[in-house]
Amino acid sequence: MIRVGIIGSTGLAGEGLIRVLLGHPEAKLTCVCSDHAAGKDVADVIPGLAKELSIELCPTDADRLVAETDVVFMAKKSADSMRLVPRLLDGGVKAIDIGGEFRLKDPAEYEKWYGGKHECPGLLGEAVYGLPEFHADEIAAARLIANPGCYPTSALIPLVPLLRKKLIEPDGIAVDAYSGMSGAGRTSGYAFIDHNEDIRAYKPVGHKHTPEIEQELSGAAGRAVVISFVPHLAPLDRGIHTTIFARATAASSDALRVLQEFYADAPFVRVFADPGKVTLLNVRNTNYCDISVALDNRTGMVIIVSALDNTTKGAGAQAVQNMNLMFDLDETTGLKNRSY
Amino acid sequence: MIRVGIIGSTGLAGEGLIRVLLGHPEAKLTCVCSDHAAGKDVADVIPGLAKELSIELCPTDADRLVAETDVVFMAKKSADSMRLVPRLLDGGVKAIDIGGEFRLKDPAEYEKWYGGKHECPGLLGEAVYGLPEFHADEIAAARLIANPGCYPTSALIPLVPLLRKKLIEPDGIAVDAYSGMSGAGRTSGYAFIDHNEDIRAYKPVGHKHTPEIEQELSGAAGRAVVISFVPHLAPLDRGIHTTIFARATAASSDALRVLQEFYADAPFVRVFADPGKVTLLNVRNTNYCDISVALDNRTGMVIIVSALDNTTKGAGAQAVQNMNLMFDLDETTGLKNRSY
Amino acid sequence: MIRVGIIGSTGLAGEGLIRVLLGHPEAKLTCVCSDHAAGKDVADVIPGLAKELSIELCPTDADRLVAETDVVFMAKKSADSMRLVPRLLDGGVKAIDIGGEFRLKDPAEYEKWYGGKHECPGLLGEAVYGLPEFHADEIAAARLIANPGCYPTSALIPLVPLLRKKLIEPDGIAVDAYSGMSGAGRTSGYAFIDHNEDIRAYKPVGHKHTPEIEQELSGAAGRAVVISFVPHLAPLDRGIHTTIFARATAASSDALRVLQEFYADAPFVRVFADPGKVTLLNVRNTNYCDISVALDNRTGMVIIVSALDNTTKGAGAQAVQNMNLMFDLDETTGLKNRSY
Amino acid sequence: MIRVGIIGSTGLAGEGLIRVLLGHPEAKLTCVCSDHAAGKDVADVIPGLAKELSIELCPTDADRLVAETDVVFMAKKSADSMRLVPRLLDGGVKAIDIGGEFRLKDPAEYEKWYGGKHECPGLLGEAVYGLPEFHADEIAAARLIANPGCYPTSALIPLVPLLRKKLIEPDGIAVDAYSGMSGAGRTSGYAFIDHNEDIRAYKPVGHKHTPEIEQELSGAAGRAVVISFVPHLAPLDRGIHTTIFARATAASSDALRVLQEFYADAPFVRVFADPGKVTLLNVRNTNYCDISVALDNRTGMVIIVSALDNTTKGAGAQAVQNMNLMFDLDETTGLKNRSY
Repeated sequence: MIRVGIIGSTGLAGEGLIRVLLGHPEAKLTCVCSDHAAGKDVADVIPGLAKELSIELCPTDADRLVAETDVVFMAKKSADSMRLVPRLLDGGVKAIDIGGEFRLKDPAEYEKWYGGKHECPGLLGEAVYGLPEFHADEIAAARLIANPGCYPTSALIPLVPLLRKKLIEPDGIAVDAYSGMSGAGRTSGYAFIDHNEDIRAYKPVGHKHTPEIEQELSGAAGRAVVISFVPHLAPLDRGIHTTIFARATAASSDALRVLQEFYADAPFVRVFADPGKVTLLNVRNTNYCDISVALDNRTGMVIIVSALDNTTKGAGAQAVQNMNLMFDLDETTGLKNRSY
Repeated sequence: MIRVGIIGSTGLAGEGLIRVLLGHPEAKLTCVCSDHAAGKDVADVIPGLAKELSIELCPTDADRLVAETDVVFMAKKSADSMRLVPRLLDGGVKAIDIGGEFRLKDPAEYEKWYGGKHECPGLLGEAVYGLPEFHADEIAAARLIANPGCYPTSALIPLVPLLRKKLIEPDGIAVDAYSGMSGAGRTSGYAFIDHNEDIRAYKPVGHKHTPEIEQELSGAAGRAVVISFVPHLAPLDRGIHTTIFARATAASSDALRVLQEFYADAPFVRVFADPGKVTLLNVRNTNYCDISVALDNRTGMVIIVSALDNTTKGAGAQAVQNMNLMFDLDETTGLKNRSY
Repeated sequence: MIRVGIIGSTGLAGEGLIRVLLGHPEAKLTCVCSDHAAGKDVADVIPGLAKELSIELCPTDADRLVAETDVVFMAKKSADSMRLVPRLLDGGVKAIDIGGEFRLKDPAEYEKWYGGKHECPGLLGEAVYGLPEFHADEIAAARLIANPGCYPTSALIPLVPLLRKKLIEPDGIAVDAYSGMSGAGRTSGYAFIDHNEDIRAYKPVGHKHTPEIEQELSGAAGRAVVISFVPHLAPLDRGIHTTIFARATAASSDALRVLQEFYADAPFVRVFADPGKVTLLNVRNTNYCDISVALDNRTGMVIIVSALDNTTKGAGAQAVQNMNLMFDLDETTGLKNRSY
Repeated sequence: MIRVGIIGSTGLAGEGLIRVLLGHPEAKLTCVCSDHAAGKDVADVIPGLAKELSIELCPTDADRLVAETDVVFMAKKSADSMRLVPRLLDGGVKAIDIGGEFRLKDPAEYEKWYGGKHECPGLLGEAVYGLPEFHADEIAAARLIANPGCYPTSALIPLVPLLRKKLIEPDGIAVDAYSGMSGAGRTSGYAFIDHNEDIRAYKPVGHKHTPEIEQELSGAAGRAVVISFVPHLAPLDRGIHTTIFARATAASSDALRVLQEFYADAPFVRVFADPGKVTLLNVRNTNYCDISVALDNRTGMVIIVSALDNTTKGAGAQAVQNMNLMFDLDETTGLKNRSY
C-alpha cells in the first residue's frame, strides 16, 4: 500500500483528493493535514465524509510526513507549503503539487505571472509537468510532479498532438474557456446571486495559466508559441468547456483522424467525431477529457472543443493518475467506473 | 461473479444501473437489453460510457436471460416487462424491479393508484419491499424484489423508526418533497426553460408513491396510517429533499437520539443533529440517505428532514444494495467511496 | 410627483426599490442614501443602472430627508436606521420599513424573536402591517408602514381568507417554504458551490418570520394561531414557493371558489384551479402572488400552494404598492407590465 | 396609438413581444394571432399573462391584419408567414420579421444557409436590417424590417465600429458565443437533465447566423469579411455572452476610447472599461447590449466581450426599438426601466 499524505485537506482540492483516494485499492491515507482543524475527525469538518472516512486531521509536520508517507499531495498554496517540498524530497518522499508552484521552468516567468519570488527555484528544473498523456515516462521516474492546471489540461490535450503533427498553425491560437465555479476553490467568495444565470470573462489578458500552456505548446511545436487565453465563469459547479480557434495548415483535414489514432489507447481521453458529444455532463465526476475537432474549409480555421471536470482530470484525479505512474501501478488504478 | 441482466438499459434508470454495476467487483453485465437499440454497442448509444464499457445491446429475450444471468434488474415500465418476471423466476433467475410494479401488496390498491390491471398479481404477495434498512433478512431470502420509490425511501428512512418507537403520532403526517428533474426519467419532456429557476408542485393529491409509503408506515405503526404527500419539481438534476411535519408525542424529545442509535451501524444512513447538514450536495452521487429531526416544543410538532440522490439510493444503487443481500455479499460491496 | 428617499440604497433590497421606482410615473428619487458610497454616482456602484439612473449617492441625513422627501423607504437593518424613523415622522415624512423592525405589535415578542431591545417601541402600535390585500384602508391613512416579510406574504395571502371563512382548521397548520438565494441579501455569503444543485432547511424551529405570520393569522381566525414554519434555501435567484398543509373543515370543499371570489378584483393575486400553474416562473419579476388550493378528501387535509418573487411582491414592489395607497394613487401605478 | 398585430403569439418570441408591448404607452395589441389556439383568451394559453392581458387569440388572416393593424411582427417561421408579408405591405401595413427570413440580401446565400427557396426574394432588397445602432435612418423610412438575430446583434455591436475605424484586422475574426436555452424557442425539446450543468458547442461550422454577421461586417470594413462563429448552449434561461478574438492593428490601443465615444449617446449600448462588468445579469430583462474591449500587447490580439438578453435586445425588444423608429417615436419609448 502506498502511504499518502495530503497538505491542505479541508480545501476543495484537498477534499477532492480524499474522495479520489478513498476508492483507490493501493493507497492508504496516513497524514491528512489541516493546520486549522488539526485534532478533529475529518468527517466533523467535511460532513459529506461521514461513514466514508474517519481519521484525525494532523498538523502539517515535515518529520511526521517523512516518517509516515511515501507520497504527499500539496493542495494548499502558501510559502510554508512550498518550503516543505525540499524536506520531503530529502526524506525520500515523493511530492505532487497541485497548487501550480512548480509548473514553469523559468523562475523569471514565475515571478512575472505569479508575482513574488519562488521559494525553491532550484527544484523547477527537476519538477516534471504531470500530463500523463505526454510525459508518462518522465512522470514514472520523477520525485516531484507539477500537476497541471485545469484550463491547461483542457487546452493541451487536443493542441499538443495537432501541433506536433503540424495540423494547425502555431501562430494566432485563441483559447476560449468556461469554468464551473469550483475552479476558484472554497474561499473564492463567489456568491450564488452574483453568478447564477450569469457568464462573464475574467482576466482576459494575463491569466497565470497562460505561460504553462505556452511552455508545453512550444515544446510540441519546436518553437516559441504564444496564445490568447480568455477564462470565463459559467453557472455550474464543475467542468471546463474550452473552444479553441487555430489556423488550418494544408494537412488540417487529417486532424480528427490523427487525434483518434493518437488517443486510441489513452485510457482517459476520448475523441468524438461530433463536437456536440463533447459535453460537460459526459465527463462530470470522471477523469476523462473529451475532445473533438472540425475544419472549416470556408474560413481556413480549425475549431477544437474540449471538456473535462476541473475537480478530477483538472486536479485531484489527474494527480492520482500521476501517482499511479510514479509507483508503477496501472495508470487507471482507482480511476475508472467511479461516477454514478 | 454474479451474472447480471438489465431490461431497459438505455433509459435513465438503466444507465444508472450500468454505472453502479461497472464499479461492482462481484458483478458482470451479461445481458444489457435494449429493444430499440439492440445490436449497437452501448457506448454508441450512451456516449458517456465510451472507454468505460463496450458491450453489444441485446434484445429482451426471456430464454437468453434465463441462460445467461443470475439476476435481472427491471428498469423499464411496460406490460411486456412485467410478464417477463414469472418466466425469469421460473428459470431460477432472481428479479429486482425498479419500475414500481410490485410494491403494493393489494392488487386493488395497484389498480386504484396505478391504473389498469396488474399483469401478475400472484407475485405481489411474494415480492419483498427492498428497503434494506428494515427488511434485510427477507431481502436475503427473496426471489423478487420491489425496489422502493425515490420519494418513499426518503420518507420511510426517518419515519419508520419514529413510528415504531411511538416518537411521533401516526395521524396527520405531512410529507413535502422536492425532486430533481431526473426523477421523471429521460423521456419526461421537462424542458430546461420551463423548469430552470422554477419550483412547482405536481399531483399534490393522489401521487402513486403515496400508498407505498402508507403500506410501510402502517406496518411500522401497527395500524393503518394515512399521509398527505406533495411532490414538487425543483431546478436541479438529482436529489430529493423531503421535509416532514408530524405531531409530537410525549416521547418526541428522544427522537434524535433514537434515530442515531437505530442507524448507528447502518452503512448508508447518516443522522445529523443539525438539520442544516442534511443537504443534497452531501448525498449527491452516493448511496446515502441523510436525515435529521427537531422537536418544536412551542408548536408540538416534530420536523424531520431527509436527503438522498434519487438516481442512486432512490433507484439503482439501492437496487444493487438489495442484490448484495440476495447474493450473500457484504451489503456495501461496490457502493462506498464512489463519488468524486 | 412624490419625492422619494431610500436608506440602504446599494443593498439588494435598496437596488430592488430603485428599479421599481424608476418605472413609476409619479415618483422621483431625491435622496438615494448610502453611507459607505456617498458622493459616488449610483451607476458607478451598481453597474447595471448605467444609462438607467444617474444620481449622486448621499449620506443618510435626517434633516435632508425631511427637507427633500415625502416618503422614505428603510432598506437597511441597523439601530441607526430605526432611530431615524421618529425623526422622519415628526418632520411630516412617511416611512415604509422593509427591514422587519415594525412588524410585531408586542415589544416583548420583538425581543424574543429578533434579539435585543426595540429602538422605538412607542411606534409599534402605530405602524400598519403593509399587506394591501387585507389592510388597504389603514395603509392609506398610515404614516408608518411595516412592509411584510417575503415568507409571510406568501403564506398569508392564501391563509387569511381561508381562516376568516373557516375553510381550514386554525390548529396544526404547517408552512413549508423554499426561497431563492436573494432572500438573504447581498452580504449573506452564500457561495455558489455550496448552494447550486442543493436544497436544505435552515432554522426549522424559530425563524423570526414565524410570529409575524401568527399575528396576522390570529387576527383572521379571531383566536391565537400557532404554526410550524420551515424555510429552505433553493438553488435559484428569486422566488418563494410555499406549500401549506392544513386540516380540513366541513366547508373546505368551497376553498377554491372562495379564494377565487375573494381575489377576483385584487390586482396582484391570481388564483389557479390547477396547483401546477402556481410556478415561480409565472411570478418572476412581477408583483403577483399566485395561489391554488386542493382538498384531499382521503386524508382530510387541505393543500395550499403559493408563489411570489421575494424581491418584488416579497419586498420592494409591495412597498411601492403601499406607497401608492398612502399617496392616493391607483394601487397598481408603476407595478403592472414590467416584466419582459 | 399604433395598432399592432403579432403572428405566432404563443411561441416564446411571440410571448416576448406581447410582454414588451404591454408596457409600451403608444402601442395597442389588436391582432394577437395563433392558429392553433384561436378563440381562446391569451391568458388561458399563457397563464403568466393572467391579469396582465385579456384578449381573444385570432386566426392569422391577411385581410383582418390589413384592416386592423399598422404594423405586424412576424414571430413564426413558416412559408405561410413569409407569403403574408407582401400582402401586408400592399395593404399599407409595415412588417417586422423576427424569424430571420429577410436578413440576407442575396437569395442564393439564403438558399445556401437556410435551405430551400425564398418565398418572396423580391423583397430581400427592400428589407432593412434592423440594427438601430447602425441603420436608424433607413429603419425610419422602411416598410419591412429584418430584425437581427440574437448572436449577430451581440457580435455586430462591438465589431462594426472597430472595423469601420480599422481598430482590428478584418481577417481571422473568431466569434465564440454562449446562449441561454431560450434561444431555441419553446419547441426546441432541450430537456433540463440534458443541459443543466452542461455546456456544449453546436454547429461549430455552418450556423446560419454566420452570413448575416459577415454581410454587416463586410459593409463596415468596405471589403468581404469572413468569420469563424461557434455557438454554444449554456445552462441558463436567457442571455448571450460573446467573446471575440481579432488581430490588432497599429491603432488598436484606441479601441476602448473609440467604442466609448461611438456609443456615448446610444441609449441601449453600454461600454465598460472592465470586461468583468460585462455580465449577463446586468443585461437580463433589459434592452441593453454591454460591451468591453482589451488589447493584449503581448499577443497582438484584441479581446472583445459582449452581453445581451437574447429574448429582448436579441429579439422582441429590439423589434420594438425598430417600431419606435418607424413610427417616429423616441427610440426608447417603452423600453427603459422595465426590469425589476
